[in-house]
Amino acid sequence: MSIRHVWRLARRPSGTIVAGDFEFGSEPLPELSDGQILLRVRYLSLDPAQRIFIDAREQFMPPVELGAPMHGFVVGVVEKSRRTGITEGTILSGVGEWADYIVSDGTGFTELPTFPGLSLAATFGTFSLVGPTAYFGLLDIASPQPGETLVVSAASGGVGQIVGQIGKLKGCRVIGIAGGPQKCAFVTEQLGFDACIDYKSANVGEMLDHLAPEGVDIYFEQVGGSIRNAVMERMKMFGRVSLCGLISEYNAAEADTQPSFSWVTMMRRLTIRGFIVDDYQRRLPEAVENLAAWMQSGQLTTHQDIRQGLENAVSSLQDLYSGQNFGKLLLEVTP
Amino acid sequence: MSIRHVWRLARRPSGTIVAGDFEFGSEPLPELSDGQILLRVRYLSLDPAQRIFIDAREQFMPPVELGAPMHGFVVGVVEKSRRTGITEGTILSGVGEWADYIVSDGTGFTELPTFPGLSLAATFGTFSLVGPTAYFGLLDIASPQPGETLVVSAASGGVGQIVGQIGKLKGCRVIGIAGGPQKCAFVTEQLGFDACIDYKSANVGEMLDHLAPEGVDIYFEQVGGSIRNAVMERMKMFGRVSLCGLISEYNAAEADTQPSFSWVTMMRRLTIRGFIVDDYQRRLPEAVENLAAWMQSGQLTTHQDIRQGLENAVSSLQDLYSGQNFGKLLLEVTP
Repeated sequence: MSIRHVWRLARRPSGTIVAGDFEFGSEPLPELSDGQILLRVRYLSLDPAQRIFIDAREQFMPPVELGAPMHGFVVGVVEKSRRTGITEGTILSGVGEWADYIVSDGTGFTELPTFPGLSLAATFGTFSLVGPTAYFGLLDIASPQPGETLVVSAASGGVGQIVGQIGKLKGCRVIGIAGGPQKCAFVTEQLGFDACIDYKSANVGEMLDHLAPEGVDIYFEQVGGSIRNAVMERMKMFGRVSLCGLISEYNAAEADTQPSFSWVTMMRRLTIRGFIVDDYQRRLPEAVENLAAWMQSGQLTTHQDIRQGLENAVSSLQDLYSGQNFGKLLLEVTP
Repeated sequence: MSIRHVWRLARRPSGTIVAGDFEFGSEPLPELSDGQILLRVRYLSLDPAQRIFIDAREQFMPPVELGAPMHGFVVGVVEKSRRTGITEGTILSGVGEWADYIVSDGTGFTELPTFPGLSLAATFGTFSLVGPTAYFGLLDIASPQPGETLVVSAASGGVGQIVGQIGKLKGCRVIGIAGGPQKCAFVTEQLGFDACIDYKSANVGEMLDHLAPEGVDIYFEQVGGSIRNAVMERMKMFGRVSLCGLISEYNAAEADTQPSFSWVTMMRRLTIRGFIVDDYQRRLPEAVENLAAWMQSGQLTTHQDIRQGLENAVSSLQDLYSGQNFGKLLLEVTP
């Protein structure tokens, strides 16, 4: 009998994730029934929202239950299929368990398109989540116009790096905010942002006053907390805030202590809009098509931070919240 | 030599407006020069934003200077004209001084349209500010759909009463929030809102849970503070907040201590948008035309609270912030 390895949620974290919040184990791999497939997982996508999935607070989907396998976006190869319409060797991606092998009826999985010149990691890492998030979150929610100033927090992360590059393609002046000189150098030198503020060594507000004295037209929000406050104070008339994430607030499901900025929102006629890429399911092909074309023509670079080994899933995920990742974080589960 | 009476700003209020913040006096009325008109003021419009005009904080226009005449929307009759194109007897409205007579070159004034069956007070009180504010703030900012639940704070006030009635015309379920049983009865019985919460005697959140257990699609925000927080907690997925005013926060230019609701905004994909009717200058005729048609057909009622005598301008304005007005507050200056 074959076995599989799987991560299960042992308890709901209190604050920062610690090792004991999850349990890594092995279990028998059941025989396939009719209508099922066996997926060998190639990569897990590790994403900030996963901290939310294991919390009991308000969220997109029902939270992961205690004792249940942890889940997230995964990509894998169909090793066996007893399901009509899915052939062995197909590359499927979707929301799946943190495991090396998944038995499924295929619900929630779709075939991952392939593009000449793009690796599986770049394709999965870009198109499964962060690319469409960046694409719709910037273009639909914030309508960037040439000459506008766009500020992107978590600028070197999976979504941020793409947002800033699309902003440049649309003619914006793009200022990233990232943690540390290495990330900032990557953002300006490799990705072509106009500037990057290292929030670990600089005062974000003062730097914005220096870099964008006229203010900020678009804030692509991924972090919350004091960085959000510094940018909000500097929004321009008719500015837009695309509210994509709040990573600095994920570990602390405590009272909402950040200021409302209602006065600024009213006086400057701001639009603040929350969104989730799931809302754009029907338009995903548009995003994938455009992102792929930009990547293939060299106008868009996406950087993946690829870790190895399913046993390192939790420690890799922890790195997201301490900013130890560099680009889109993936975990290679099987070769 | 003729004289005029005028209110001047004596000092910037600290918190609530008190009598000594303004000074009422008389002064010689200058002879008209070429290009000038003499306007006899019929009504002052007293509006919540006037508390902002006399503060030093961030606002729409430069604040009223110390020693300068207080200003706001006014309507009057041209008594003398030395300006080509403006004839005596014309009714002009626009931003003008708190005075019984105004000498002006006409800048900022436009002819007030007249409509059969509508009094000057109803026409000025509705079309100069609150009507277009309600019209664009609801229809443009929040796109109400039939069957949606609309919550209107300051429901019996100048803007609120119109917002709720337009909401009904658009097929929404409309819940007002107002202070006291008399205002609530007016809102439901005279204006036809589906329900009204008396925030002075009831817990707004609990009442919303009871009246709209499925949540709120649109919040027309005019008050800020704890009422805003109670509604924000109950916004539905893809809800819209039309941020028109924050009257509970105008007297306290202190730190922004209201919570951000960023989490709720993200998870529920809310859109929060600040606006000012000035942004819709080009489209004002559309609002006036539709509002007038609704009024003339009896589908829209607007209630004016008309006070008498220029000397009572400050005490009448004070009543706005303590909720002592009932409908659109006007001051009749001359008969």
